[in-house]
Amino acid sequence: MKIGLDVMGGDFAPDAIIEGAVDSLQYLSADDQLVLLGDERSILAKLKKLDTRPSGFKIIHTSQIIGMGDIPAKAYSQKPDSSIAVGYRMLKNGEIDGFCSAGNTGAMLVGASYTVNLIPGVLRPALVTILPSVDKRNSVILDVGLNPDCKPDVLLQYGILGSIFAKYVLEINNPSVRLLNIGEEETKGTPAVKVAYELMKGYPGINFRGNIEANGLFVETMADVIVCDGFVGNVVLKLSEAFHHIYQSRNLKDAYFDSLNFENIGGTPIVGINANVVIGHGISKRKATMNMILQTWAVVHVDLAQKIKEAI
Amino acid sequence: MKIGLDVMGGDFAPDAIIEGAVDSLQYLSADDQLVLLGDERSILAKLKKLDTRPSGFKIIHTSQIIGMGDIPAKAYSQKPDSSIAVGYRMLKNGEIDGFCSAGNTGAMLVGASYTVNLIPGVLRPALVTILPSVDKRNSVILDVGLNPDCKPDVLLQYGILGSIFAKYVLEINNPSVRLLNIGEEETKGTPAVKVAYELMKGYPGINFRGNIEANGLFVETMADVIVCDGFVGNVVLKLSEAFHHIYQSRNLKDAYFDSLNFENIGGTPIVGINANVVIGHGISKRKATMNMILQTWAVVHVDLAQKIKEAI
Repeated sequence: MKIGLDVMGGDFAPDAIIEGAVDSLQYLSADDQLVLLGDERSILAKLKKLDTRPSGFKIIHTSQIIGMGDIPAKAYSQKPDSSIAVGYRMLKNGEIDGFCSAGNTGAMLVGASYTVNLIPGVLRPALVTILPSVDKRNSVILDVGLNPDCKPDVLLQYGILGSIFAKYVLEINNPSVRLLNIGEEETKGTPAVKVAYELMKGYPGINFRGNIEANGLFVETMADVIVCDGFVGNVVLKLSEAFHHIYQSRNLKDAYFDSLNFENIGGTPIVGINANVVIGHGISKRKATMNMILQTWAVVHVDLAQKIKEAI
Repeated sequence: MKIGLDVMGGDFAPDAIIEGAVDSLQYLSADDQLVLLGDERSILAKLKKLDTRPSGFKIIHTSQIIGMGDIPAKAYSQKPDSSIAVGYRMLKNGEIDGFCSAGNTGAMLVGASYTVNLIPGVLRPALVTILPSVDKRNSVILDVGLNPDCKPDVLLQYGILGSIFAKYVLEINNPSVRLLNIGEEETKGTPAVKVAYELMKGYPGINFRGNIEANGLFVETMADVIVCDGFVGNVVLKLSEAFHHIYQSRNLKDAYFDSLNFENIGGTPIVGINANVVIGHGISKRKATMNMILQTWAVVHVDLAQKIKEAI
């Protein structure tokens, strides 16, 4: 499998991204190829410093950079030789099977909509992330940031997309789905969430188990798929980050709190588009980048986009 | 000051509530009176067990109970001699200066709207809770559960209500206000949050400092007042509860994570109504009840409702 990596994206690019790429090689097989997109001179110089032969990668030189602060649509159009634009062209042409970047999230979304597009039938794409629970099961939560205001039919469809992700990527049979809400009763929440509950309750394609409150997250009983709008999901993700950070800064030692480190997860796949794309955290360093690459590999390995296309 | 306590409300009522009442006495002065509303026989029997003289309290016998599962409006109307209904009548008549309950939140809200009402000019009431930060400053967050879907003018007003709370209850001069959002840029978030940003930015009555992301909560830079809708605030509150619970269950020891225990805070005041009312967590035991009473005392002490009336 060919995985494209945007070497120029992220606060610590290109150095930390190349370090992560080198670290990921040990987990990839001989059939896999990691395609580095970015400034060739910087890549070769960094690989030399790391004592790594360039022949382990395919290097595609790109001459432009979309920065973290660039306006996405404008930058994407004006920088056709940026690593993000070139990556999406390669993805569309089948030259790579998956693409990942810790760079400008907006530009990554613009690129998706300009090239690979939404899967027909998908209402809105979503960012999916993995939530580890205290009993070491992984669950998924979506959306964690793309659509802050979700209509009920979008929330229902997130239940479907999340179930496909849980089934194929996490290998969970008949994954349970819960709607994140402010009470367990079906009359709780915003109008959108109440209607979503009704839609999900009657929908045969998902294993819906009702509402879950935020104090039910991260524990054994949490459910395999947690559905919420992108505002609430983003708050859950970032609050977990806050607690992990406090945990770290206070020199506590605990395997579960360690597992909350985003660096162990590495990236959040975009689901609903016609390709396998993973977005990394802007602050990704070496370890996070390595795991973003491996997360992309996992998504490509099961061809998640194809599985969603077949199911929708 | 006279504080009314609903002895019959909460999962561990009346025993744990009476225990908390007894514990709170040591912090109240001779001028204060704690008014216990509930079944007199149960109260006297429990006080005897605790070796506490009933003369330390004023006991108001009530013959009905609104349960945690009762439908609020219906129960409130059909049970005029319940501790909640009697408490609100006493509050309205000035026989008590503040009222608190760990019982049915819906019935507590119905009682407020049937008796003491909203302060004129207040659009919607809110539940305010205290968030401790790692540098031991307290901030407030609102709303944490009353209004899951907030219009922009309600969010602006929550900034005002929260500022009054921070100024008088936490004694913070010129408290800073931030809007909880999914990015720092003012173009982020739902339509309601974007408009709220515009309203708050131009409003002279609050010290607005822009957006805050959830990973900026609990740290030194968090701001004194955090504004969000009741859905998001409820998620923040319950997720903090989840992390505190995990922390406890894994036998970690840390002063900051200890401070996240809701039992130390005890209750969330309702702001925006014509009286000082505090709602406790349904699972309140002895310690949480004691702190709910002391929280009520603090709110009554500064007459928060009056301060809000003067400011709106």
